[in-house]
Amino acid sequence: MTGIAELTTNAAVAGDPCGTIRDAAVRVHAGRVAWVGTTDAATSSAHRPGRDGLPVVDAAGRAVVPGFVDSHSHLVFAGDRADEFAARMAGRSYAAGGIRTTVAATRAASDDDLRRRLRALVDECRAQGTTTLEIKTGYGLDVETETRLARLAAEVTEEVTFLGAHVVPAEFAGRPDDYIALVTGAMLEAAAPFARWIDVFCEDGAFTADQSRRVLDAGRARGLGIRVHGNQLGYGAGVALAVASGAAAVDHCTYLTDDDLSALAASTTVATLLPGVEFSTRQPYPDARRLLDAGVTVALASDCNPGSSFTSSMPLMIALAVREMGMTPAEAVWAATAGGARALRRTDVGRIAPGARADLVLLEAPSRVHLAYRPGVPLVRRVWKDGVEV
Amino acid sequence: MTGIAELTTNAAVAGDPCGTIRDAAVRVHAGRVAWVGTTDAATSSAHRPGRDGLPVVDAAGRAVVPGFVDSHSHLVFAGDRADEFAARMAGRSYAAGGIRTTVAATRAASDDDLRRRLRALVDECRAQGTTTLEIKTGYGLDVETETRLARLAAEVTEEVTFLGAHVVPAEFAGRPDDYIALVTGAMLEAAAPFARWIDVFCEDGAFTADQSRRVLDAGRARGLGIRVHGNQLGYGAGVALAVASGAAAVDHCTYLTDDDLSALAASTTVATLLPGVEFSTRQPYPDARRLLDAGVTVALASDCNPGSSFTSSMPLMIALAVREMGMTPAEAVWAATAGGARALRRTDVGRIAPGARADLVLLEAPSRVHLAYRPGVPLVRRVWKDGVEV
Repeated sequence: MTGIAELTTNAAVAGDPCGTIRDAAVRVHAGRVAWVGTTDAATSSAHRPGRDGLPVVDAAGRAVVPGFVDSHSHLVFAGDRADEFAARMAGRSYAAGGIRTTVAATRAASDDDLRRRLRALVDECRAQGTTTLEIKTGYGLDVETETRLARLAAEVTEEVTFLGAHVVPAEFAGRPDDYIALVTGAMLEAAAPFARWIDVFCEDGAFTADQSRRVLDAGRARGLGIRVHGNQLGYGAGVALAVASGAAAVDHCTYLTDDDLSALAASTTVATLLPGVEFSTRQPYPDARRLLDAGVTVALASDCNPGSSFTSSMPLMIALAVREMGMTPAEAVWAATAGGARALRRTDVGRIAPGARADLVLLEAPSRVHLAYRPGVPLVRRVWKDGVEV
Repeated sequence: MTGIAELTTNAAVAGDPCGTIRDAAVRVHAGRVAWVGTTDAATSSAHRPGRDGLPVVDAAGRAVVPGFVDSHSHLVFAGDRADEFAARMAGRSYAAGGIRTTVAATRAASDDDLRRRLRALVDECRAQGTTTLEIKTGYGLDVETETRLARLAAEVTEEVTFLGAHVVPAEFAGRPDDYIALVTGAMLEAAAPFARWIDVFCEDGAFTADQSRRVLDAGRARGLGIRVHGNQLGYGAGVALAVASGAAAVDHCTYLTDDDLSALAASTTVATLLPGVEFSTRQPYPDARRLLDAGVTVALASDCNPGSSFTSSMPLMIALAVREMGMTPAEAVWAATAGGARALRRTDVGRIAPGARADLVLLEAPSRVHLAYRPGVPLVRRVWKDGVEV
């Protein structure tokens, strides 16, 4: 690709974490980025456009960013909760119990139905520039269905997260510890072969710190990486537990004490912010500025799910991060690409540098700032994953 | 089209201003809607799908809404104000003077450059389901450029609005009345042949009530319909003037007294809300609920412009109306279609009924609610204008 008006490489340089190159060129070979530099340097070197008969994409006047890394989604489910959404917007408060509606529909759905829905959503993500996508289970909540969901998710991504500990299912009402025993026992055993990560919803109304720790310990013992949902609806133990457990990420992070902030800043745990949830539930947005100023690594993700955030749009997450959470456009784009990669402990995505996967998004805009400046406008013009156009 | 899961006709019936038909069919002839009803009624009647060899579109499982009517945009301009946007988001306050940046770039641009930019934006609107589009002048502010902008806008829409009275240009600083004399004299005379409407920005920092009245009176005398920008940044005379002048619409309406509200409710003037502005400037959103409860007719529009709202996305306006302004999804969809049509005093658009233009949007969703439930997701799958697919 040549003539890129503004290339976001995310190769950190002083004062510019986005590693911006103007009038840039990118050379791709065998699904990886082979070379990055200015168009001038490419033209006068062994990396000149069209060498080896490779196709040349003219990106004149347009910006290129790394493919988005959406590190938090719940895409395997059945059913529709548009009516619940409309009711909530008319003033009814957000009920975590709404998850159970989706659990009932998901348990009843066939593999084919779930697969068809999942693939349509993955296609929707790809068309909007998401080239790496984490997908959680959590709408099965029994051994058979959680395993099915993990298996179906593994058909479309390597980043599968086992979230049996999403909420306590109705049949275990009043017996959360018995449910945790199932999650950490037979359910984990059956789902783990399809998963890379384990996750738990550590929050009042979901699981206590102690229950959450049991889940994470069992997952770690089974070889899974650790992620946590926490501090979404109130102050709580989620962040502290995530940091103490060496979690790759703790997601939501709306209600943080100064101690939570210090713990995050001193850790390798990424704070993943999910502004689609606050948009769709009218909850307060997390304060990204406070996190960034404290030195915490921040990722942005969609949390795409049928209850609290049925959006797959990483560009909208960027726009909301700028409008509502105090991030600059550059910080928001970094968080939606390199930040997501850190949250998944990946170094092969989220940046455009030699050796990285050739996951590229060509914008119908001269600058990444337009992702926030032009909210809602489909600016993603072309997308490549592993060097192949989607 | 047959098998439409949910058809929004906007043919008012008791309790449902959207005139919803389920499992619906629409028959199109010569660019107009010829028939609307259930798929069953179509199949068993003279309106059966495929009669006369017309192509049949299977809309099974998907919703259809009227093409969006965006009754407020500023699409003829040159330049880019992404840096101003980023600065404002970082804490600098909104300066109306920013308009002058665009004026300088627009005056310097060739017709070809302006036309290329305008057509790209119109294509962008169409792809997102906007089939009727009002376009204002207002970045020329001299006789020659305002006339050029009106002429270029008239190449792409019948809904051209002459907005010479956008702000006082630098060369008339301190002499607003002299500028009003130009606007109502030579500028109006030259631009009017290309325009259907006249508009004025009646607000502190722009034009007074008296200056605004002179503009509207001159436009009316020249045969133009009347629109007003008012009550955006503070309480003021805009709404009262609009109603007294018989304006088709008064746009923004954030700061309204009870008297403003009563005047609007008793008038045929539509209150047009532009939530893209509040999103992109962090100003308070207007209270749509208060307007609707008072019986005011509300329209939604994008205000697409490079300074305060560089979005062309009517779906995002619907999502913001529901999230931020207290509208139900049905009210928001109505306001973005039938409401916009009322704001333009059009009866041939904004509804799907025999005789109306065949301006149709097929959504990748089972219900119009998804336009708010799935913010940022490009749900517009196919668009027809005058029966021809865009």
